[in-house]
Amino acid sequence: MSDTARTVLAGLGSVRSDLEDLYRDLHRHPELGLREHRTAKRAADALRQSGYDVTEGVGGTGVVGVLANGDGPVVMARADMDALPVRERTGLPYASTATVTDEDGREQPVMHACGHDVHVTCLTGCARLLAEHRDAWRGTFVALFQPSEENGDGADAMIEDGLTDRSPRPDVVLAQHVLPYPAGYVGTRAGSFLSAADSLRVTVHGRGAHGSAPQASVDPVVIAASVVVRLQTVVSRELAATTPAVVTVGSVHAGSGPNVIPDRAVLELNVRTYDDATRTQVLDAIKRIVRAECEASRSPREPEFERLSSFPPTVNDEEPTRRVAEAFGAYFGDDAHTVELQTASEDMSEIPGAFGVPFTYWAIGGIDPDRYAEAARKGTVAQDIPVNHSAAFAPVVQPTLDTGVSALTVAALAWLGDDRSA
Amino acid sequence: MSDTARTVLAGLGSVRSDLEDLYRDLHRHPELGLREHRTAKRAADALRQSGYDVTEGVGGTGVVGVLANGDGPVVMARADMDALPVRERTGLPYASTATVTDEDGREQPVMHACGHDVHVTCLTGCARLLAEHRDAWRGTFVALFQPSEENGDGADAMIEDGLTDRSPRPDVVLAQHVLPYPAGYVGTRAGSFLSAADSLRVTVHGRGAHGSAPQASVDPVVIAASVVVRLQTVVSRELAATTPAVVTVGSVHAGSGPNVIPDRAVLELNVRTYDDATRTQVLDAIKRIVRAECEASRSPREPEFERLSSFPPTVNDEEPTRRVAEAFGAYFGDDAHTVELQTASEDMSEIPGAFGVPFTYWAIGGIDPDRYAEAARKGTVAQDIPVNHSAAFAPVVQPTLDTGVSALTVAALAWLGDDRSA
Amino acid sequence: MSDTARTVLAGLGSVRSDLEDLYRDLHRHPELGLREHRTAKRAADALRQSGYDVTEGVGGTGVVGVLANGDGPVVMARADMDALPVRERTGLPYASTATVTDEDGREQPVMHACGHDVHVTCLTGCARLLAEHRDAWRGTFVALFQPSEENGDGADAMIEDGLTDRSPRPDVVLAQHVLPYPAGYVGTRAGSFLSAADSLRVTVHGRGAHGSAPQASVDPVVIAASVVVRLQTVVSRELAATTPAVVTVGSVHAGSGPNVIPDRAVLELNVRTYDDATRTQVLDAIKRIVRAECEASRSPREPEFERLSSFPPTVNDEEPTRRVAEAFGAYFGDDAHTVELQTASEDMSEIPGAFGVPFTYWAIGGIDPDRYAEAARKGTVAQDIPVNHSAAFAPVVQPTLDTGVSALTVAALAWLGDDRSA
Amino acid sequence: MSDTARTVLAGLGSVRSDLEDLYRDLHRHPELGLREHRTAKRAADALRQSGYDVTEGVGGTGVVGVLANGDGPVVMARADMDALPVRERTGLPYASTATVTDEDGREQPVMHACGHDVHVTCLTGCARLLAEHRDAWRGTFVALFQPSEENGDGADAMIEDGLTDRSPRPDVVLAQHVLPYPAGYVGTRAGSFLSAADSLRVTVHGRGAHGSAPQASVDPVVIAASVVVRLQTVVSRELAATTPAVVTVGSVHAGSGPNVIPDRAVLELNVRTYDDATRTQVLDAIKRIVRAECEASRSPREPEFERLSSFPPTVNDEEPTRRVAEAFGAYFGDDAHTVELQTASEDMSEIPGAFGVPFTYWAIGGIDPDRYAEAARKGTVAQDIPVNHSAAFAPVVQPTLDTGVSALTVAALAWLGDDRSA
Repeated sequence: MSDTARTVLAGLGSVRSDLEDLYRDLHRHPELGLREHRTAKRAADALRQSGYDVTEGVGGTGVVGVLANGDGPVVMARADMDALPVRERTGLPYASTATVTDEDGREQPVMHACGHDVHVTCLTGCARLLAEHRDAWRGTFVALFQPSEENGDGADAMIEDGLTDRSPRPDVVLAQHVLPYPAGYVGTRAGSFLSAADSLRVTVHGRGAHGSAPQASVDPVVIAASVVVRLQTVVSRELAATTPAVVTVGSVHAGSGPNVIPDRAVLELNVRTYDDATRTQVLDAIKRIVRAECEASRSPREPEFERLSSFPPTVNDEEPTRRVAEAFGAYFGDDAHTVELQTASEDMSEIPGAFGVPFTYWAIGGIDPDRYAEAARKGTVAQDIPVNHSAAFAPVVQPTLDTGVSALTVAALAWLGDDRSA
Repeated sequence: MSDTARTVLAGLGSVRSDLEDLYRDLHRHPELGLREHRTAKRAADALRQSGYDVTEGVGGTGVVGVLANGDGPVVMARADMDALPVRERTGLPYASTATVTDEDGREQPVMHACGHDVHVTCLTGCARLLAEHRDAWRGTFVALFQPSEENGDGADAMIEDGLTDRSPRPDVVLAQHVLPYPAGYVGTRAGSFLSAADSLRVTVHGRGAHGSAPQASVDPVVIAASVVVRLQTVVSRELAATTPAVVTVGSVHAGSGPNVIPDRAVLELNVRTYDDATRTQVLDAIKRIVRAECEASRSPREPEFERLSSFPPTVNDEEPTRRVAEAFGAYFGDDAHTVELQTASEDMSEIPGAFGVPFTYWAIGGIDPDRYAEAARKGTVAQDIPVNHSAAFAPVVQPTLDTGVSALTVAALAWLGDDRSA
Repeated sequence: MSDTARTVLAGLGSVRSDLEDLYRDLHRHPELGLREHRTAKRAADALRQSGYDVTEGVGGTGVVGVLANGDGPVVMARADMDALPVRERTGLPYASTATVTDEDGREQPVMHACGHDVHVTCLTGCARLLAEHRDAWRGTFVALFQPSEENGDGADAMIEDGLTDRSPRPDVVLAQHVLPYPAGYVGTRAGSFLSAADSLRVTVHGRGAHGSAPQASVDPVVIAASVVVRLQTVVSRELAATTPAVVTVGSVHAGSGPNVIPDRAVLELNVRTYDDATRTQVLDAIKRIVRAECEASRSPREPEFERLSSFPPTVNDEEPTRRVAEAFGAYFGDDAHTVELQTASEDMSEIPGAFGVPFTYWAIGGIDPDRYAEAARKGTVAQDIPVNHSAAFAPVVQPTLDTGVSALTVAALAWLGDDRSA
Repeated sequence: MSDTARTVLAGLGSVRSDLEDLYRDLHRHPELGLREHRTAKRAADALRQSGYDVTEGVGGTGVVGVLANGDGPVVMARADMDALPVRERTGLPYASTATVTDEDGREQPVMHACGHDVHVTCLTGCARLLAEHRDAWRGTFVALFQPSEENGDGADAMIEDGLTDRSPRPDVVLAQHVLPYPAGYVGTRAGSFLSAADSLRVTVHGRGAHGSAPQASVDPVVIAASVVVRLQTVVSRELAATTPAVVTVGSVHAGSGPNVIPDRAVLELNVRTYDDATRTQVLDAIKRIVRAECEASRSPREPEFERLSSFPPTVNDEEPTRRVAEAFGAYFGDDAHTVELQTASEDMSEIPGAFGVPFTYWAIGGIDPDRYAEAARKGTVAQDIPVNHSAAFAPVVQPTLDTGVSALTVAALAWLGDDRSA
């Protein structure tokens, strides 16, 4: 299979310049989630030019391109398209100066601070190379461009908009993310890769009173404080040391002055877990503890729980991950790694979930290798290397794009170019 | 002494109508603290008309009127003049519709929701009666009208503006407050009467981080919660059961969303104590606990403590209180009571404090006696009787004013009309 | 009425020496609760000698002596007889060296460290003086000697053993306690005087596990700690500042080593309150909080609450207290005081409770007045003056006994010697 | 190298019966730490019989046997010898009925509940096979039998008794442990394998007082509770989700009754971490929190920290682990696994630490494979399979012993039988 990949990727030189131009253009024109009209059009046009059968507007701005190339496996590769409300401070010649008007009429800056422009570019490149070398493989390749990953609602939007009827059912779904590793690096990981992330708002109710009369009150400040303190035991006492999880109370708000006991407190929580059982256990424990602390204070009303956002855990399936890891090892040699567990979250797994098929997701590096090596030598990686969502996050164009195109192509061909899969 | 009081108060009938007019006028024209220009002018004019030597503008709008009437004790009686930013909902024909423009350019309603209009009227009446019957007593009577009691800075303002040089040094200072007892009621209390009230803002510092990375943070939400929980031990463990005190955390604010650990939390506290030793002990304990909880979380910066307001305890001196209580017993009979400890606060004690002289402070009732009796019979006093600072607080004109004028006069004459004091 | 008391107490000189001997004998021979056989016999013999109709063995060792003296009020005076398991360190010539063998076969020291020997002696003296001067009064005097006050079960024992059928129903019940005030002092107090004291054992259940596997456990140490912390809010947030109460967790025990999470924790609590409503409120709040904290930790079993002991509040009835206070004022002059609220507890109120009659209870001082005055001058009363239950508690014989006999006699005659009561 | 191992292990059949007898004898005669006289003698005798140069009494009962077999690597294999104070409930014909008299004169049961009898037997077997086939390899084999692993002081005892001077310096140290996996299983793991375990006793000081007088106390029950609650934040907030650690407060003891506030509380903690940096961080955080909570309560004395026991983390070196894993893969095929991170602790790493050499440690299974498979099928492994330290822990004799002998031999020959190592 490695030979097939090498055959197809021999064409990389002829598309490299186009891809670099595309990348700079996308970076200069970032679009927020569900507004990726320009980005989607560029992706759809490129697919069409390569001979794909293209469906646009799936879930708003999503794009599905299908290249049927005889009997064989169906491989779907997914890229996310949206950018973030961050003011770019990279100093790049192609830096974004885009802004957008938000609901309150304020101008907001927009930036590809998470590297989705890399993802779109690389999938476009892979799609083109596969189209140009369709004699080297057989089966069907589906290139899927998803909106609004950052808000966690883009995969859902496509699914609710009929994705499973508007795309062939894949045998496997592939996706990649550029992360702050050295450009050239590819990293796979079987099993847990990204955390689930659940955000919720909890309102606890007390009874207001003058600050001098606690006996007339049920003090919601004390309830909220007791909840925060008691929630620490979820991670410390209810989970094994080796079960990673985070319960963060990111905000707490109650009252408007020193001298009046308010009638409620509002907490906003973020929960990170790595598998569904732990996720359920932790969310249940939070509700149990909040309710009990309300009872301890004889709260007059049930607490309220409002889901603010919810990302599933990204747990790579074993078999496709092993297959991709082997293909990466054969193609990338020492640049192929096992990547660490990440605390970030993703909604891509909802797409294979909707089809009921396995998936694997991997990392590619985007940092100038020399810069990374120097920071590593000085022990300053954490300080010196900008991470995703930072205003200074600026993947180097190469070898980032080459690596991303190659990784997608090698992985896709692990099915499409493999006689065993036929 | 009772006879002297009866002699002087025989004149009450001739001034009653003027006082009721004055009261309604003041009620209709409330003024916020340090803006009591109209009120102060009315008081000063009345004093001058009665022959007092008047100094205006002491501490902004404060007024000091002196009536020297031969050798004898010097008695100062104090009334506070300011109103509150409350929209009146009493339905009275003389209800306030006044508003004032605040610093942010917003119109704010103003109302005499704490009865200071009663205080001003009664002191004006007492001053006039004493002037009209100066043959019945000897000594010096000082009528002091203080600004800005509600903000706790009016007594200070007068003192800092040279009060002790601009008034004869009194032998005793007297003051009264209308409270939600039946009109006609007078209530004295030796020792602790009103609480000290200290409001402070506490800022605890953490280190912000992404919500998924607590290890990179010092979580100020956990610090704030631990502070709130631990502060409960001040009252429960550090004070005797019989030492009344309240520590209320009226507000807590930290963070702006579920997913980011903020870098600070702000708590606003109100502390009620009844003597200076306990006040100091509790305020020290709060600081100790806040600092310790910051250390427990390895907070990177010292917590900050900001004083928002500070009222001293009002602790009536034994001797003048006993003297006034006896005089009230003789004059008011069964309407003279021992009043309960109050959780409200006052700054009047700073005035006798500045002179280094004793004082006594008492309560008069302002509620329609029939209405009060019915509520008492139904056990609904707490619900049915509006309290000070309520938008519905509306003392009945009579017998409230008669009682207030009489109480001041009887009390003043306990010194001025008493041969023992000569 | 004062004259009657003076008449009767004129006889004090003739009995003083007998009483002092009795006191020293009782002090030398202390007996623990429900074992007061010798003490009871001495009291009963003395009553019989004075002509009382005596019932012994009421509730084990209780004694009831009745002196009917014509129509008139029935006054019961009660003294408690039991001592404490304390090794005396007073250095007195008549110090106790008594020991008793406890259930486990160990020798325990016994001492009258709470002054019940004073109470027995004074009631014996009062009973004798009333008997010797029965022409000066009319009505019925009942002298009651109660066992086992320290354990809180002596009054109950007498009541369950038929006290209300074995004594005339009194109009009022009187009792006194020697406290660390100067000898000669008598102090009354209307309303709340002594606290209720409730002791309970709380067992919270977890699930044991190896210390390295919290996920397999429900950690009862965390439950117990959370309970202790949360219980602080009962006093700090659920009661008014002016409602005195104490919730003490005196002991907590869980586990037997560092490395095993135990399956339960046991807390022992003591609760002090001053009226029945607060008592009920606090005990209910404790149960509510313990249950809620068990739920917060998903405890597998309901917590258990076991009552260890229970003393009612001692709340003096207004009318008899006023009557005694007046009589004391008339007889003792400046030595008659209003005494402070005490945090100690008593079971005497169960006796008037059983009869459904009012009572009053007062304090007499027992400390050498010079010693007390010096300590007061130096501000070292708290350190230098031994308190009840201390191994050094040693009331001076006089004027302690004279004062105690006189106080009982003056108080009893406020009914028996008063024409108004006839 | 696999061929060499097969050659040597061809002799397993001839020693199997002797080893099974030895195992049953050791199981029947367990000895507590530092009392392993009989066990050590059996091991030493067996080594001598096989021609080893034997040193006894190293660190009390430790044994070092050396077989020098020409130039080549020096491999040390270590087995621990001690048993536990557990009453055996396995029902085995060779179950232990041994008891020992402890310091307090009480009879204590003793049982090989942790499988050290398996370890001793297997190392004896390996040593004999290597001696009998010394033509198949070259270098030096050191068989080390260590006392008192359970108490964490046996490796130290040997080191302090001059181990590094009494044994050749090894190139690598090997050790294995029987765990509740199916017999036949071998499991290696590079990096973190077993946790560090630190047990400490913490004494916090308050000031005792009567339960009714919290104001006179510094309540150590509240301090202890606050410490327990606050310690939860070490794991929940100070460590990354992916850094495993446990902080357990296994016991808390304070006070002796409900009504007296005691003057101290004693907590016993157990801490599990997997690397030295985390270990130091957590132990420091505990001290910081304890001290801060003492300050929050104005504790009159510094808290005391007493180390009860301390096991280092067992972190397998990469290179030898990879080498053993490869050798196991070649020899055991599908029975060779990567084993999970364990929460147990060991002191064996101190031996290679003393020599400054790398080591690797692995697991062998001891459970009847059919029984294990059935429990796995039913999902009841956690309930049905007895674990180490349980009174029912009973490894099946075979294939446990064969596997243990083979694993040690295969691993040792990965150096001794490998031309690369020569």
